[in-house]
Formats: sequence, structure tokens, C-alpha cells
Amino acid sequence: MKPVNIGILGLGTVGGGTVEVLRRNAAEISRRLGREVKVAAVSTRDAQKARALCGADTLITDDPFEVVRHEGIDIVAELFGGTEIAKDLVLEAIENGKHVVTANKKLLAEYGNEIFARAEAKNVMVQFEAAVAGGIPIIKALREGLAANNIRSIAGIINGTSNFILSEMREKGSAFADVLKEAQALGYAEADPTFDIEGHDAGHKITIMSALAFGTPVNFAACYLEGISRLDSRDIKYAEELGYRIKLLGITRKTEKGIELRVHPTLVPECRLIANVNGVMNAVRVQADMVGETLYYGPGAGALPTASAVVADIVDICRLMDAGVQNRVPYLAFHPQGVQPLTMLPMDEITSSYYLRVQAEDKPGVLGNIASLLAKQEISIEALIQKGVIDGSKAEIVILTHSTVEKQMKAAIAEVEALASVSEPVVMIRMEALNG
Amino acid sequence: MKPVNIGILGLGTVGGGTVEVLRRNAAEISRRLGREVKVAAVSTRDAQKARALCGADTLITDDPFEVVRHEGIDIVAELFGGTEIAKDLVLEAIENGKHVVTANKKLLAEYGNEIFARAEAKNVMVQFEAAVAGGIPIIKALREGLAANNIRSIAGIINGTSNFILSEMREKGSAFADVLKEAQALGYAEADPTFDIEGHDAGHKITIMSALAFGTPVNFAACYLEGISRLDSRDIKYAEELGYRIKLLGITRKTEKGIELRVHPTLVPECRLIANVNGVMNAVRVQADMVGETLYYGPGAGALPTASAVVADIVDICRLMDAGVQNRVPYLAFHPQGVQPLTMLPMDEITSSYYLRVQAEDKPGVLGNIASLLAKQEISIEALIQKGVIDGSKAEIVILTHSTVEKQMKAAIAEVEALASVSEPVVMIRMEALNG
Repeated sequence: MKPVNIGILGLGTVGGGTVEVLRRNAAEISRRLGREVKVAAVSTRDAQKARALCGADTLITDDPFEVVRHEGIDIVAELFGGTEIAKDLVLEAIENGKHVVTANKKLLAEYGNEIFARAEAKNVMVQFEAAVAGGIPIIKALREGLAANNIRSIAGIINGTSNFILSEMREKGSAFADVLKEAQALGYAEADPTFDIEGHDAGHKITIMSALAFGTPVNFAACYLEGISRLDSRDIKYAEELGYRIKLLGITRKTEKGIELRVHPTLVPECRLIANVNGVMNAVRVQADMVGETLYYGPGAGALPTASAVVADIVDICRLMDAGVQNRVPYLAFHPQGVQPLTMLPMDEITSSYYLRVQAEDKPGVLGNIASLLAKQEISIEALIQKGVIDGSKAEIVILTHSTVEKQMKAAIAEVEALASVSEPVVMIRMEALNG
Repeated sequence: MKPVNIGILGLGTVGGGTVEVLRRNAAEISRRLGREVKVAAVSTRDAQKARALCGADTLITDDPFEVVRHEGIDIVAELFGGTEIAKDLVLEAIENGKHVVTANKKLLAEYGNEIFARAEAKNVMVQFEAAVAGGIPIIKALREGLAANNIRSIAGIINGTSNFILSEMREKGSAFADVLKEAQALGYAEADPTFDIEGHDAGHKITIMSALAFGTPVNFAACYLEGISRLDSRDIKYAEELGYRIKLLGITRKTEKGIELRVHPTLVPECRLIANVNGVMNAVRVQADMVGETLYYGPGAGALPTASAVVADIVDICRLMDAGVQNRVPYLAFHPQGVQPLTMLPMDEITSSYYLRVQAEDKPGVLGNIASLLAKQEISIEALIQKGVIDGSKAEIVILTHSTVEKQMKAAIAEVEALASVSEPVVMIRMEALNG
């Protein structure tokens, strides 16, 4: 069979990694496919880097639109990042009948519905394994491996920067700001870390997984985002004393009322495998009705791990590009006619357990007052411990609650904060038992 | 599109589970596929059970050959078990142009090459996700998700019975025989547990994964098998004191000399995720050149989890049955022309670190003698601890070695056992750092 020609847009970390994987493993990939995969064109502003990485017969250009319009290109790998030019490039590649591979989670979480609709109209594949959890083949697991199941929920450690920071805060008892500096020095966090530490990146990824799990259009606007920047290392310590680890989880869950879609710091029992995923590694736990619990672990970022996913998508497309459209795996896991807009729950309507830390005057009756305010909102307490006295007069009370609806929790917290004996805002962190 | 007709052979645990999954999740599966999947025929001796599980339009027969010969059947699910009749049934289904799904690891590990060759000749698919690690989509990860990689090694907890027994022995300090009885009472072990506890089942599974990882024919005869029945709970305790857990691992690794393929109890550092996989759960760790380490965790057995994998295979076939043959994922992950017989290493040639426990007279010089016998075979010692004295006169010496070739380890052990001060056979358990 004739070689498949790939056009690569962008030669940054992932783009460069993709060229490297295709070159270093050319023989193994041909052995798998029975045909050759060629980097036929690359768009980059760094022609020198491109020349060093690519063969003499690769077209090198600084105009990415030249690549998406190039007649000889079968598959365009959009490794450009961002959404403005990337969206135009992907749509134009689709219009030109080219299959697309992208690692761009932001693009798909925000414009996926438009992109998939155009791809369907033009009969081309859009693959995006690298957009979620880097080298872990989680998209394939959700779209194909678990196809027998009604997926119930997904909980994932899907931002390596945040997980590294939380792991270090726990191990060393350090403050968030100090560990962030360390992560920046190690190259695990960007100079402007907002995107990672405030949950945007995890939000894009859980939005994509939510759509695949439940067969509903991507809906990033419905995703609740809360990052780790305001996390106090004291809460990490208290949580550990109670048998929990705090992880930044992306969570999506199908309930009778609608779909929960949220990113926030979360207490997880330390006996769960996912609680033991440390450093920059990622892990995604899926709960499904027939198989039960499965978990997928691996590197969520980095040039070669991410390129591993990009190239797996290229291999998939090479296998299916000559097959009929009906033989392909659907973009959103479900047949286009099976994709349904589902109700997305606002954060007030989600159900969770909670960790609360209340700073109050150390005098009789305070604890009882707090407990009755919780009871008034029908919130029952799983554990309550009084931590040491601060400044001679204030006590810290740590409470774990049973499951309740978030708006009731918020109402109770407002009433607790209104108590004369409580001066500081109550710290609230959500908990997930991950046992079903 | 018209429905796809499935013929189910065998209505035991997995067969019954498959009918149940197809029935309970019929709507979700149709939503994914855009077409209906129908259980058109079932072969079983228990017509009553079949009638209760299946619709009125399902053909129920006690002759499985009637199903594989039935004109209306598109896909045969062989959930019969065993190898004799199962092999005839699968081959006849293939001759009749039917696609096959099987959960039968023994059949594939022993007769896979013959079956895949016939399937290729007849242009049908043979899928076997359920044959390895139950509900975990590990075959899909190896054949598709990691297609960009040269796979280096696989280490898996792939027998739930053994993992349950080892978990209980560690937690309760109980003896093997006692925990086995408990596992039998709980239904986690068969009345005749040989197949599970002596490593045969894990051997079949790692043999299949080895073939997929490296693109080489299945070769169960080359697989070294050592089970857990002779494991002493003392060694589990000593290993834990040294920071290790003992797991029954299936291991396969590509080395310059050839392919290692083996099943045996193995010390694993407790900081590795796989060391924390407890009870009947399975996990497979894959080391590959581009992505690095990934791990896949989930239930390795049970009616519904295994059926989840069977039905995922059915969905894959439904998607591809109308596509050209060249569009399908190859049986052994590599294009048939890319599958190569590779050198399989005999056990003496594998490389490992070792845990040794030596019982010796408690007198000066013994420890030095043992150390020099190891040094003579160029084996270096990572840690050596002398445990308490037994019977007033004998000491137990526990040694962890650095990496060495197994035949040198065996030569050293033979010399240690020949020492006058050593009366008992040396206990030897292999170790894997799983750090690369």
C-alpha cells in the first residue's frame, strides 16, 4: 500500500515529539500497519529545527494554511495550540477532506460540536487521544473499550502540574506558593500557571470525557472550576490525619437530575488507588454499570508521551481512512443520531460529602451551635475533631459530613459564618468516597 | 442498518453475563452503534435458563455446532471454555465465514497461531479482549492505544485468585493453606485451584500479551510457570519489612538476547502503584519507549466485567464487519507480514534481582561464607539482614541481590546449600524494581 502523508502544524513540544516518534519508530509502526507513515509537510517558524528533525523530502513552510491546503496530505496533525488560528486551520483541513488529529483540549472543549459537525458532513475523522491525559489511551477506553456499559461517573487526576504541587505540599508540608516556585524551576509549571492551577486545563479535559461518556455535546460553559491556589497545607495535613488525600479531580457523573461536571480540590480516601497517584502522573477512574471500576494511569504530559497518543490516532486513521464512514468509531463515542443534549447540573444541585474547617472562639456551646446549624439543613456529621487552640483563644474544628446537596451545605456555612463566635470564613473542601 | 445477529456458545458465567449485558444495555449499545445487536442463537444444555434470559425469537439448542453452522449468525461468541470442543467450534465458525469473539485464554495461548491463520485466510475477525484481565481493555491498549511505541516490557497481576490469597496472607499473616480455604468458601477459588495458584492461568494471559506486544506468534510452551502454593508467609513479612510486597506477576520483556516470558511470585517495591493492587483486582503495567509507564486496573473476572469485554469486542466487530479486511486491527497487533518468530529466552538466561532466605547455623563465619559464594558468581548484595535465631541454634539470613543472570543465581544457591552449616533449601523469590 502507498505511504500515508502527514502534515504537522506546529513544531513545539508535541509537534517536535510527534516527528521524533514517527522517525524513531518508523520500522515498528510500518510493522504494525503494513504501510509507511511519512511526515510530508511541517509548518513552523523555526525552519532550522524542522530541517534537523525531518527528511529532505519534507515540505517545510511558515504558513500552516499551505499544509492544510496541500493536495498530497492525507492527515493533518494540529499541534499548534490556542483556539483562534487552530480552529480556522482544523476547519479548513476538514473542508479540504483531510483527516485531523489534534492534541488541543481547549479547542475541542470550546468548539468541538462545530468541528465534529463539519467533520461528519465531510466524512473525515477527527481524533484527539492526546487531548486528554497525554499518553494514557483513555479516549479509546471510553469510546471503544467500555462500549458495553452505561458509564456512571469519571474522576480523574488530569493536570500534572497541580498533582505535583499537591504531592509536594503533602510530603513536605510546604505552602502552595513555595511549591509553585519549585514547580516552575523544574519546568512542571508555566511562568503564568493560571491555566493549570485554577482548573481550566482539567476542566477542558473532563468536559471532553463527559461528552464521550454520556453521548452529549461538549459543554465547557457548564463546567464548574475551582483550582488549588487557595489550598492551605493545614487542610492537607488534617485530611491526612483523617485518612484522606487531597487531589484536584475532574469529576463528571450521571445522576437522575442531570450531569455533574466539575473540577475542584477533593478529599479521597487514601486506600483508593487514585489517592496514591503522585507527582506529575495522571490517572482516570471510570465507574461503569457492567465492568464496575477501571483505572488508567500514565504520564499526562511531555513531548514523547503526548506524541505517543498523537501517533496512535494517526495509526487508527491509517487503518480506517479507506473504510466506509459507517465503519468508524463515532467522534463522541455514540452514533451521531445517539448524541443527546443532557441536562447539565448547576453546582448548587450536585451531591457531595464535605470537609469543613471552622475557626471559632474556644468556649462552651460553639461546637453544639455549629452542629445544630448543620442539622437544620439536614446535613449529618460523619466525624468531628477539635484541633489545637490557636492564639490562646480560638479553636479549629474539622468536620466531615455525609452526602448532601451543595446548596444546603452553602446555606449551612452561611449560617455558621454568621455566628458571633466564628470570625474567619469556613474552609470547605468536597469529598468523594469513590466506592461506587 | 439491519441488526447484527450473535450466536452464543455456552451459557455459564461469562455466556450468561454476555446475554445479560446485551439485554440490559441494549438501548445504550444501539445508541453507540447506530444499529441493533441481537442474541439470535444460544447453545446450552440448560434450555430453561436460556429461555429465562433470552427473547422468544432466540434459537436455543443443545448442539453448539448448530449455532456455528447457522446461516443467520454474523458473530459467534465462544464462551464454552476448555480447548477440545472449543477449538473445533471456533475453527468451524471461521470456515463458515463468521467472526468470532472468545474469552478463552487457554485456547488462544495454545492454538492461537492456527486459529489466527485460518481467520486470516477466511477474512474474519477473531477478538479476545475478555481473555486477558477480564473487564480491563488491555488488548485494545496494546494493539491500538500504544501503537506508536516499541513496547519494552509488561508486568501484570492477572490472576485474581492468587492476588486475593497473597493480599490476605499479608494482611492477616495467615498461612497459604488457610487463606486458600477461605478463598474457596468465598467463591474466589475453585475446588481444584491448581490452574489459578500454580500460574497456568496467568501464563496463558501473559503469553497472549507477549505476542501482541512484540509481534511474535503465541508460544505458551516457552512460558516459565511458578505459582504461589509454596510461598511462606514469613517471606511476605520479611519482604514487607524491607519495603516490598510479594505479587504473582506475569512478566514479559524484550531484551537484546530474546524475549523473557515468565510467571512467578515477585517482590515489588511498595511505592509502585501495582504493589497496592489488592484482593481480586487485576492490573497490567506496560513500559514502552515513547509513552513510558502506563497502567490499567480493573476487575479481572466475574460475569458482568468479563461480559463487558466480550460485548466491547462485539461492538468493534459490528463497526468493522462491513469494512475491507485491510481496515481491521491485526489479530496480533502487527500486520501479518510483520509478525516474526522471536527468540524466547529459557529461564536460566533471564535477568532479575533476587530475595534469598537462608537458614544456617548461628555461628561466626557463616555469613561471610555465603557472601563470598555470591561474589564468586559476580552477584552483588543490595541488603543483608540477619533475622532472629530459630530453635536456639539456627539463624535466618535474608539477602536482597542486585541484578544478575538466573543461572548464576542458581549456581550460587547450589553452593550455599552445599555448605555444612546450611541444612534447609534456600528460599529464592525474584524481585522487579519496575522503575524502567
